[in-house]
Formats: sequence, structure tokens, C-alpha cells
Amino acid sequence: MQNSEKIRLEAISDGVIAIAITLLALELKIPHLGTKNFLDSIIDVVPLIPGVLTFILSFVSIAIFWVNHHRLSQHIKKIDGKIIWINTLFLMFQTLIPFATRLTSENPQNVLSVLIYSVILFGSSATFAILHYFVHKEDPITNHSMERSLVGPIFYVGAIFATMVSIWISYIFLIIPLIFYFIPRSTKKEERGTISI
Amino acid sequence: MQNSEKIRLEAISDGVIAIAITLLALELKIPHLGTKNFLDSIIDVVPLIPGVLTFILSFVSIAIFWVNHHRLSQHIKKIDGKIIWINTLFLMFQTLIPFATRLTSENPQNVLSVLIYSVILFGSSATFAILHYFVHKEDPITNHSMERSLVGPIFYVGAIFATMVSIWISYIFLIIPLIFYFIPRSTKKEERGTISI
Amino acid sequence: MQNSEKIRLEAISDGVIAIAITLLALELKIPHLGTKNFLDSIIDVVPLIPGVLTFILSFVSIAIFWVNHHRLSQHIKKIDGKIIWINTLFLMFQTLIPFATRLTSENPQNVLSVLIYSVILFGSSATFAILHYFVHKEDPITNHSMERSLVGPIFYVGAIFATMVSIWISYIFLIIPLIFYFIPRSTKKEERGTISI
Amino acid sequence: MQNSEKIRLEAISDGVIAIAITLLALELKIPHLGTKNFLDSIIDVVPLIPGVLTFILSFVSIAIFWVNHHRLSQHIKKIDGKIIWINTLFLMFQTLIPFATRLTSENPQNVLSVLIYSVILFGSSATFAILHYFVHKEDPITNHSMERSLVGPIFYVGAIFATMVSIWISYIFLIIPLIFYFIPRSTKKEERGTISI
Repeated sequence: MQNSEKIRLEAISDGVIAIAITLLALELKIPHLGTKNFLDSIIDVVPLIPGVLTFILSFVSIAIFWVNHHRLSQHIKKIDGKIIWINTLFLMFQTLIPFATRLTSENPQNVLSVLIYSVILFGSSATFAILHYFVHKEDPITNHSMERSLVGPIFYVGAIFATMVSIWISYIFLIIPLIFYFIPRSTKKEERGTISI
Repeated sequence: MQNSEKIRLEAISDGVIAIAITLLALELKIPHLGTKNFLDSIIDVVPLIPGVLTFILSFVSIAIFWVNHHRLSQHIKKIDGKIIWINTLFLMFQTLIPFATRLTSENPQNVLSVLIYSVILFGSSATFAILHYFVHKEDPITNHSMERSLVGPIFYVGAIFATMVSIWISYIFLIIPLIFYFIPRSTKKEERGTISI
Repeated sequence: MQNSEKIRLEAISDGVIAIAITLLALELKIPHLGTKNFLDSIIDVVPLIPGVLTFILSFVSIAIFWVNHHRLSQHIKKIDGKIIWINTLFLMFQTLIPFATRLTSENPQNVLSVLIYSVILFGSSATFAILHYFVHKEDPITNHSMERSLVGPIFYVGAIFATMVSIWISYIFLIIPLIFYFIPRSTKKEERGTISI
Repeated sequence: MQNSEKIRLEAISDGVIAIAITLLALELKIPHLGTKNFLDSIIDVVPLIPGVLTFILSFVSIAIFWVNHHRLSQHIKKIDGKIIWINTLFLMFQTLIPFATRLTSENPQNVLSVLIYSVILFGSSATFAILHYFVHKEDPITNHSMERSLVGPIFYVGAIFATMVSIWISYIFLIIPLIFYFIPRSTKKEERGTISI
């Protein structure tokens, strides 16, 4: 059963996430290719590859946040101030992902830009984990295990510290949570998570 | 009957599609016309025509994807991981359409830009066809024939290969699916598709 | 009573209109003021006034379209292909309003830019009138009189032709419908239009 | 109990607010850092700090407007022309917040930009207070005390007049309402405000 407060919390979250994910592609640069032939055009497009890879990384990250938020919100029983504010903070980090994506596309090999990118993804996943904790406390039989929500923050902290060694290790730490969340949960849990009509 | 998961899947899809379609017009360039007279202003506006034509092509393409998504989602009985992820991939291609539109507006006669445009429309229609297939499998009496969903991918593959011959043939291949989907289905099917209150 | 098709038609319409209206302010230019004193800053801001006036004109125009769309959609009984496509065309003109606004802000005294602005507002109001007509045909007891929906198209046609004489007359024609729609309808009709819970 | 008019008023409000809040981060500038080392990159990033602080100030301001709008709209019993138009004016000020944020980020020490920023926040809070008043009149037992809604307008008027003395006093006046609205209301009222399912 839905209530009007929950519908609006989901609506604003969906709105912000939908806009953030759509703005990612807005940041992709457009090369001036004119009527160059195919091979010359390819050469012009090569420098844009880091931007495209960062776009894909950010798109999948936001999509996973959305899917997890979508699953979590089904278990929200009561909207209180705590949930509204931690959700707002989570959304603030979501809106910063396109900014961090642009920053990293422009400066893919710069330590500071990878650090900022990692901090923003850490903020997203940490606020999500706190939101998870608040919802979990009210509804202990939720099928979202708390452990699952800690995978993101742990690896993103790893990415932050790895910038001190090598940004390439940071990139690996940023990719691992995506692979983790892509692997479907065991069928038994999946069944429980889905609702047939 | 709707469930909360389906409502949110539709909400995020509507959100992303609405933003993508609205951003298209944001890419249109503004000429500096000052207080030039009418004829001189017309001359300044002429170079913008390819951009306007690409805008219309993309707007109609996204609108058709939205209408088809809207019709298909009525038949979704169960939201599982497969449907969420193929829908997310579909939305990723939707967000790339404004990017491809900008690229083609800037470089209307470049082979690579037409190729990228075709690939992104192919990706949109192929992921939509897969989504269609998943929904169809659960609900065999749907009035969306699978054949209908294959028209897009087939012509867009045609547009991709046609870039090797001539970009103008590619443009024709890109326009055909729009005309196809504009022609209303037979009244009998249409009747079945609409729900009176 | 709502059905899922109608909810999504409203959702996509609200989404596109909300984005279009929010993007208007994105077009406003930012002057570089540095630490100039108040009077010098005012002087720098003066050239932005046409942009602000165009912003207000477009904001109120879109808001009126939204309010009227909102009122009209309550009377939609059946979503068919005709309604979906005329609504899509209506939304296309809505997405072009921020473009036309930017064009007119940049070139407030240019005949062609005022002409394009008028054409886009005419397109918006004409497609809305056709949508109104389709809904009206199915539900003759609607309290939206067809005459009311023709005020927009008539004055916007006036604005188009007035560009041949003077753009200032065009601006007057563009403002009149806004004043017309701002004047509340007679209380009796208003009462019928509102729904108490 | 919801009605379709109220759902759409909330939908357009959520849409506009979600877009405005997401666009804030779009305005953040991207420095070109290349492969500079960490310390040199930090030096390049320092000039962006006023922009980040303004971003946070605006994000929290819009979030508070959203939370308060969300709470107020639960008490709306009847949507009439007055409520639609004051809500539209409120949304217009919301769409101007990203503009004012950009202006202040560019010119953080300029009197006029701080004045415009304050005027726009004053407009937002004043239109919200009027909306509150209209809703309150219809539903006197609302738990939103009118006094609470006047805190914003009063401090924002203070910020406007303070620009005549010092912009730093204005900034303090702009921050106070945020702290005020962050402090949760007494538990008794909070309890009444939340709805358990």
C-alpha cells in the first residue's frame, strides 16, 4: 500500500536520478568532423574515448543506485525527517555525478579528478547505506541484507585511498562494485523480491 | 492492475525519455541576427537547416520509442532483473540520441557521424525488441506482434551498412521506420490496444 | 477514474513541460560583474533586460499551456492514436519554446526571430486546440468551451502577420492571450472545474 | 485521498524542483587539470570554492522548499485558480535559483549579484508563504504554523537590505533560514506530520 508522502519521495528521487543520468550524455564532447573521410574522422574521435568510458562507468553506477533505491523504497513503511534528509543528501551526491564525470572526462589521468570522482561515489553509496539502515531498522524482515549495501562504500573508500598509489588501481576499485551488483542475487531471493500481479 | 515497482519503472522511463526529447531542442544553435533585415536573416538561418531536420528526425524517433514503450509496458506482468536491466540499457541509448543528434547536426555529411547516429538508433530499437521479447514470453496474448518490433532494428542495421555506400541511403533507411510506425495499425488491433474508462 | 495509459500520457506531458519551463532560466546570460560597484553593475545588467522580459513571456505562456492541458486532460475518456500523436506534436512545440526564447533574447529587434517565436507559439496553441477538439468530440459536456481554445491560435496568427508591419505589434499580440487566460472564468464554471475531495 | 488534479499539481512541482536542483550542479565549472600533480591541481581548484559553497547553499535551500512543499501539499483540499497560479509563481522563482546561483558563483563579491540572489530567494519564500496561507485558510487544523512560513521571507528581506551595508551580512541572513528549517520540529508535531501505513 502506498501513501502520498511515499509517492512524492519516490517521484522526486526518480526525477533527480532520471535527470542526472540523462545529463551524463549531455557532457559528451562533439568533434568537428566536417566532410573528413572515415579514417581521419576516427582519428579525431579517439581522444573522446576516455569521456565515453567515464560516461558508461557513471551511467551504470547511477543505474545501479536507481535499481537499489527502487528495491529499497518498497520496504519504506514510514517517511520521517531522518529518511527525507538522508535521501536528499543521497540525491545531492547523485546530482554531483555528472559534474564528477565531466571533470574526469576532461582530466582522466589527473589524481585530483579521480579523487573527487571517488569521493562523490563514496558519498552516494554511504548515504544510500545509511538510508538502507534507517529503512531496515523499521522493517527487519527486508530481503536487502545490510552487507550488500556496504560493498559500495568499502570499495569506494578503497578507490579514494588508492589515488595515493595509482589512479589505475582507483579505476579498478570503481568498477568492482558495478560487477558485484550486476550479478543477480540467488533465485530464491530474486523470487521474493519480485511481485507478480 | 498496477504495482509500485511497475509504476516506478514507467516513471523512470518516462522521466529519461521526457528529458532526452526536451534536450534535443537545447542543441539547436542560435544565430546572431542583430537588426538585420528579413532576407539577410533568412540567409543566416539557412545553414541551420540540417540541424533542424536532424532535430525533427530524432524527435519523431524518440516519440515513437515512447509510444511503443508506453503500449508495451501495459503488458508487463512481472518486473524482474532481466526487464530492469534491458530497460536500463534501452534508456542509455535514449540518452545518447541527443548526443548523436548534436554530432550529426554539426557534421551532417560526415560518414562517421551518420554511422554513430545509426548505431545508437539500432541500439535503441534492438534493446526495445529484446524488452518486447521478454514481456511477450510472459504474456503471449499481447497484441504487439514481435515482427513489428523487428522493423526498427532491421532498417537501422541497413543504415549502418549503407554508410559504406552513401550516407544519403543511410538517411533513407533512418526515415523508413518512422513512416512505418506512423501508419496506424488496423482498426481491429487499435481497438484492442485502447482502454476505455 | 484514471487508467494507466492516461497516467503515462499526463506523466510524459508534465515531464516535457516541466523540463521546458525550467530550461528557460538556463538560457539567461550571466554578466561578469567582478567587484564592480552597484551602479556600474546595474549598467552591465541593463542589456540583459530583453532576455528577462522574454523569459517572463515564455514562462507565463508555458504555464498557461500547462494549466489548460491539466484541465483538459481531466476530460479525456479514451487515449487513441490521434490523441497520442497530436499531444506529441503539442509537446514538440513546447520543447521549441526555450529555443525560440533564446533566439528572441539574442535578437529582440529582429523580424525573423519574432516571426519564428510567433510561429512556435502558434504551433503550440493550434495543436492544443486540435487536442481540445478531439477530447471535446468524445465528451460534449466538458466545461472547456472550444471558443476559449481558439483565442491563442487567432492572436498568434495575428502576431505572425504583424511582423510584416512592426515587431512591436507582434509583441502586443503575443501578450494579449496571456492576459486573456489569466482572467479567471466565471465563478460558476470555475466551481464546476474544481473537484473538492 | 488524492484527486487527479492534485496529483498533477504535485507532479509538475516535483518535476520543476527536481530539474532545478539537478541543474545546480551543471553550473559547476570544470578546471583543466591535465596531468598536473596533486598540489598544483589543488591550487587550480581553489578558485572554484565560492561556486561550490553557493551550490551547497542553493541545494539546501531548494531541498527545504521541496520538503516544505511536500508537507504543505498534503493539506491541500481543493485546487483552485488561486492555488495553481501562486504555485506557478513559486515554481518560477525555483527555476530562477540555478540562474542566481550561477550569477553569484561568477561574482561572489558583487553587491548586485548578492542582491539578485536574495530577491529570488525572497520571492520563493514569499510565494510559498502565500500558498501556505491559501491552504491554511481552507484547512485551519493544519500542523504547519503560519509563523514557520514567515521565517524565510523575513530573513531574506533582511538579506536584501543588508546588501546596503555588507554582502557578508547578507550571506549570514541567507544561511539562517536553512539552519532554522533543519532543526526538527518538536517530536509531538513530527509524529502528527508523518503518516504510518
